[in-house]
This record gives sequence, C-alpha cells and structure tokens, in this order.
Amino acid sequence: MVIVGIDPGLAHTGWGVIRSDDRTWQTCAYGCIDTHASQSMAERLRAIYEGVSEVITCYHATHAAIEDVFSGNNVRTAFSLGQARGSALLACSLLETEVGEYPPNTIKQHVVGHGHADKEQVSYMVQMLLGLDHVPQPDHCSDALAIALTHGFMLSRNDLLKEECLS
Amino acid sequence: MVIVGIDPGLAHTGWGVIRSDDRTWQTCAYGCIDTHASQSMAERLRAIYEGVSEVITCYHATHAAIEDVFSGNNVRTAFSLGQARGSALLACSLLETEVGEYPPNTIKQHVVGHGHADKEQVSYMVQMLLGLDHVPQPDHCSDALAIALTHGFMLSRNDLLKEECLS
Repeated sequence: MVIVGIDPGLAHTGWGVIRSDDRTWQTCAYGCIDTHASQSMAERLRAIYEGVSEVITCYHATHAAIEDVFSGNNVRTAFSLGQARGSALLACSLLETEVGEYPPNTIKQHVVGHGHADKEQVSYMVQMLLGLDHVPQPDHCSDALAIALTHGFMLSRNDLLKEECLS
Repeated sequence: MVIVGIDPGLAHTGWGVIRSDDRTWQTCAYGCIDTHASQSMAERLRAIYEGVSEVITCYHATHAAIEDVFSGNNVRTAFSLGQARGSALLACSLLETEVGEYPPNTIKQHVVGHGHADKEQVSYMVQMLLGLDHVPQPDHCSDALAIALTHGFMLSRNDLLKEECLS
C-alpha cells in the first residue's frame, strides 16, 4: 500500500509518500509544490493539480489523504485555501485515487497522541515513526507525512478489525 | 468570440454561454451543474470540473469569466465555495481558456449600472441585454450570463480602445 499525504496551500502544498512494509511505514519521498503571488490564480491551481497528479502517478500511490476543515477565522484565507485544496482533491479524484479526509485534531491525535499538539511535536513524531535521521522540512512536508501516517493507521486498524471479525 | 460565464457553488454551479454577433451578444445556452451533499467532496468537485470542461468543449468557448472574491463572512462557506471555484477555474486552465475574474460589484456595475443592485435587477437586465423572452432561471444561470456579459463588455471596450490608439 502506498499513501500520499497532502497538506494543501495556495503558496505551498506539502506532499509526502509512505509505503507499508510488514506493518511498519517507510518514507518514499516528500516535497513541496510552490506557487507565487505573481502567477494568476488559474496558473497556481494548475501547478498544484499537475504537481499532485505527478506525485500520485510517479509513486503509484494507491491511497491519498488530505487535511479537512479550515481551522482559522479569516474568510479570504479560507477562500484561497479552499481553491488550493479543491485542485489537489480533484487530482486524486480524476486519477481514481480514494481519498481520506481528516481534521487537524484527528491527525495530531493519531501521530502525537493528543489533539492539541504543536507543530514541533508533530514534526518530531513524524521523524520517529518513519525512522528518519532528520525532521522533514519544510513544515508542509512534515504535515503531509503526518496526514499520510494518519490514513495508514486508520486503514491498518480497519484491516485488523476485519481480521478479528473473520477469526 | 464565445464566452462562458461561471457562477461557482458547491451545490449549484451556474453557467451561461454567449456569442458576439456584430457588436451585440446572443445567448447560446445556459444551465446548472448540481451536486448533492450525499456525494463525497471529491465526487462533487469532479462533477463541477467535468461539467465546466464539457460546456467549454461543446460550445467551443474562446473565453471564460468567473466571479472573484467571496463577499460573505462565513468561513466554512468560503472554504466550500473556494473548492468549487478552484475546480471550475482549473477546468478553464487545463483547456487553455483564458479567464476573466470579476468581483460581484463590478459585474453589477457593468450589467445594471450600479454596484449594489439586487438579484432581480441583475436578472431583468440580463434578459433585456440578451433579448430573451423570459428571465433565465435559476438565479445561478442569470448570474453566470451576467458574468459572461461583463467579460464581453470589457473585451469589447479593450478592442475599441485599441482601435482608437491605432487610428
């Protein structure tokens, strides 16, 4: 199973790809799709769409996961983030990649153990859980890997539940 | 010149296609792409994307126009609308259709003559300007045609300015 986690943003969309390996998770790759305010909105959304599509195709991702719900209170930021998220989600949908959607607190709960952890704790736990020798940078990559891990944990748990039901 | 105007929304995305004909504008078609809350967000965005792509392709639209800026103050609505708008804008971008983006007040200013006109005035003027025998329904279609007309007026004005500069 190969999962791509996506942390969408208009200027920076983080992505991280993990692969299941005997009930542990390994990092395949991570990175960031950057766009610039000098580009038109159409160009920026296209860059996000094409970037996410390329990652899914290149790493043969079987599943995708993306952060759900905007947690701030700035309407303009929510509108921009919505457009970026829409482009990333559409890339998954058009490539028939099933998508898990998780609110920020659920991601923190799964990776750190409580829903109000700060960014440093999330980055640190991503490094530990994936056995990396450094904290993935920038933060968007670390967040994307945390989203992918959350989806991985959810899918593994569902598999275990199924096994228990069948046994 | 064929222009598709788009009034994006997660549940209802209105579209309207107009064609220039000897400095007047004729309606080619209009309609609404509807999605339902029972569908996943990925399915809804895909429906909007595929619907807008189909309209552009079917009517050989050379230009597109879409409303800019979310004018409400509800963060969740802005986030949803952003995702819908992103999908529609991406359809234009991937089909290499140049897009004009206009805030609501600019659209009302061009179609009705002042920026704070109500919905009924906009619908009425769309009917008059396009010589239709009825008000386009639902409102989303009327709004989409108003956006297309605004872009048409802007492009025509730019052409006239160019002609004046050259003469």
